[in-house]
Amino acid sequence: MTEVKLTRAQIVDLAQRALMASGAEREAAAQVAEATAAAEWSGMPSHGLLYVPVYCEHLRVGKINAAARPTVDRPKPALLTADADSGFAHPAIDAGFRQLVPLARETGIAALAVRNSYNCGLLGHHVDRLARDNLLAIGFTNAPASIAPHGGNRPVVGTNPIAVSVPDMAGGVAVSIDQSASVIAKSEVLKHAREGREIPLGWALDPDGKPTRDAAAALKGSMAPSGGHKGFGLGLIVELFAAAASGAVLSRDASPFSGPDGGPPRTGQFFIALDADAASSGAFAEKVGQLVEAIETQPGAHVPGARKAAARTAADAQGTVSVNPALHEQVARLADAAS
Amino acid sequence: MTEVKLTRAQIVDLAQRALMASGAEREAAAQVAEATAAAEWSGMPSHGLLYVPVYCEHLRVGKINAAARPTVDRPKPALLTADADSGFAHPAIDAGFRQLVPLARETGIAALAVRNSYNCGLLGHHVDRLARDNLLAIGFTNAPASIAPHGGNRPVVGTNPIAVSVPDMAGGVAVSIDQSASVIAKSEVLKHAREGREIPLGWALDPDGKPTRDAAAALKGSMAPSGGHKGFGLGLIVELFAAAASGAVLSRDASPFSGPDGGPPRTGQFFIALDADAASSGAFAEKVGQLVEAIETQPGAHVPGARKAAARTAADAQGTVSVNPALHEQVARLADAAS
Repeated sequence: MTEVKLTRAQIVDLAQRALMASGAEREAAAQVAEATAAAEWSGMPSHGLLYVPVYCEHLRVGKINAAARPTVDRPKPALLTADADSGFAHPAIDAGFRQLVPLARETGIAALAVRNSYNCGLLGHHVDRLARDNLLAIGFTNAPASIAPHGGNRPVVGTNPIAVSVPDMAGGVAVSIDQSASVIAKSEVLKHAREGREIPLGWALDPDGKPTRDAAAALKGSMAPSGGHKGFGLGLIVELFAAAASGAVLSRDASPFSGPDGGPPRTGQFFIALDADAASSGAFAEKVGQLVEAIETQPGAHVPGARKAAARTAADAQGTVSVNPALHEQVARLADAAS
Repeated sequence: MTEVKLTRAQIVDLAQRALMASGAEREAAAQVAEATAAAEWSGMPSHGLLYVPVYCEHLRVGKINAAARPTVDRPKPALLTADADSGFAHPAIDAGFRQLVPLARETGIAALAVRNSYNCGLLGHHVDRLARDNLLAIGFTNAPASIAPHGGNRPVVGTNPIAVSVPDMAGGVAVSIDQSASVIAKSEVLKHAREGREIPLGWALDPDGKPTRDAAAALKGSMAPSGGHKGFGLGLIVELFAAAASGAVLSRDASPFSGPDGGPPRTGQFFIALDADAASSGAFAEKVGQLVEAIETQPGAHVPGARKAAARTAADAQGTVSVNPALHEQVARLADAAS
């Protein structure tokens, strides 16, 4: 097939039309389409258009509530909660952020707990928004259980990423950390299983909790936590904020993020936004600059988020990114289907 | 030597007298002595009386400012800052917590940034205090640089622990996570170097950034991050809060926590306290109970903090803990010295 190159606006348009043809409302579809384009633009196609057919299927079978009406409350002066009403996470997060940003500036620190939401895509995408508003931000999100506690064999937490985005205090992002609690993304194991290939030892465990090279056995077992018990500990920290403290469904009770079954996963997200300039009496930007320099002056070392930033710079210069032709055709068919 | 068994009050008294004989003021010495006893009582002797001779030395050479006057400010409604004035971290943290606890209950979430403080000992000790006040708490603290970024060889962040303590909402601690960014504590490498023993591959890197079994080379090189680049990422998250956002000295610029040289390290801590009951609309305690049960019902698996809790229960039942006789004699000599 011929190479397909798309502008950012073309990706947004394509994704939005596909989602709307599957029942999504205009505004929710626009927000998910923007996040999709941002992932493609940042060199993360695993979280770009590749997810659109899954979203479309989940809209059609009701795993995503297409008619969701997210609500935002403020139970305490510096604490916001959002209920995504079993719909996309993006509109609930967006509605919450509109209040979180001015609130965190006013109170110094503020939080947004999101419950009953669907897979939020790249967590870093959301916290980067807060950093562009000059706030130091942490984000947590849970996912269907895939990691067992050290010494056990039944998954309790998901690959549960943590993301921290660091403002350069001039409207940009200086550092963007976004890492899951597992050694490797579950999608990699799925890919190996589909292709009938072995996985490297250390990625996953079989149903008895033993290391395995068999991708199919791994999918029935659990993902290996990054750094052993410390990876599970980090996944548990994320679970405590994204699920327990937000009132969302625990990872072990959430329906899968793939496949048509189980109804809405109703997982959660938790965001904390800090006025780091006020906390540090104005020292923050200079200290971040020193940290970035201490890393970047080492040959071979990179500041977390640097690869994504470089991909965005390259895409901006080119005006387009390459998209897998078969995937493009699949999403275009979805976009052109009658809703 | 005969076995030495001490009550909790005896450990507090011993440590407090040793610190005061080295110049510490009564209240600061009492707080550090309480933390010392708590570590012994929790089965963590590595952070108990073993540190008292180091503290005494550092008081005498001025790495700890014995006359420190910690101050607490509130630059924004939900944000507290404390300056430890180059003294012990404990009095600054304590003064900050007196305001942080009622503030977090009122605003839903609040933070305390501590700068210019010394090694805070077990980070979990501090966040556990917040959990006993029914708050879900995160703590970060930085330490002299010992971990290099992935691909580099110059340390940028310390073993920088993160701690999360989870209230059972009845005045107790349900889960207590306290983990460093490195594979192993630096004190283990120091111990192997002193004893002339090899360290296992995977613990540390030599000055060229290559894995090493040579403990002395490791001390000139860097500690291996837990889970590779993800361990460095976690250490960097901690650094961003504990040092950059608190206005403390960066890990790469901090004087060592051992040895007489370099003056006060002036590192930092950052604490976030959340009313998780309000954030979850009352669901938090039940969800935490479900998470704990999902872990504890797996043979061989333990909730983080369970070993420390079991040690405390055993110590309470016995009324005493065993202390290394040579260490006891050393601290007793310090306690009985004229100040």
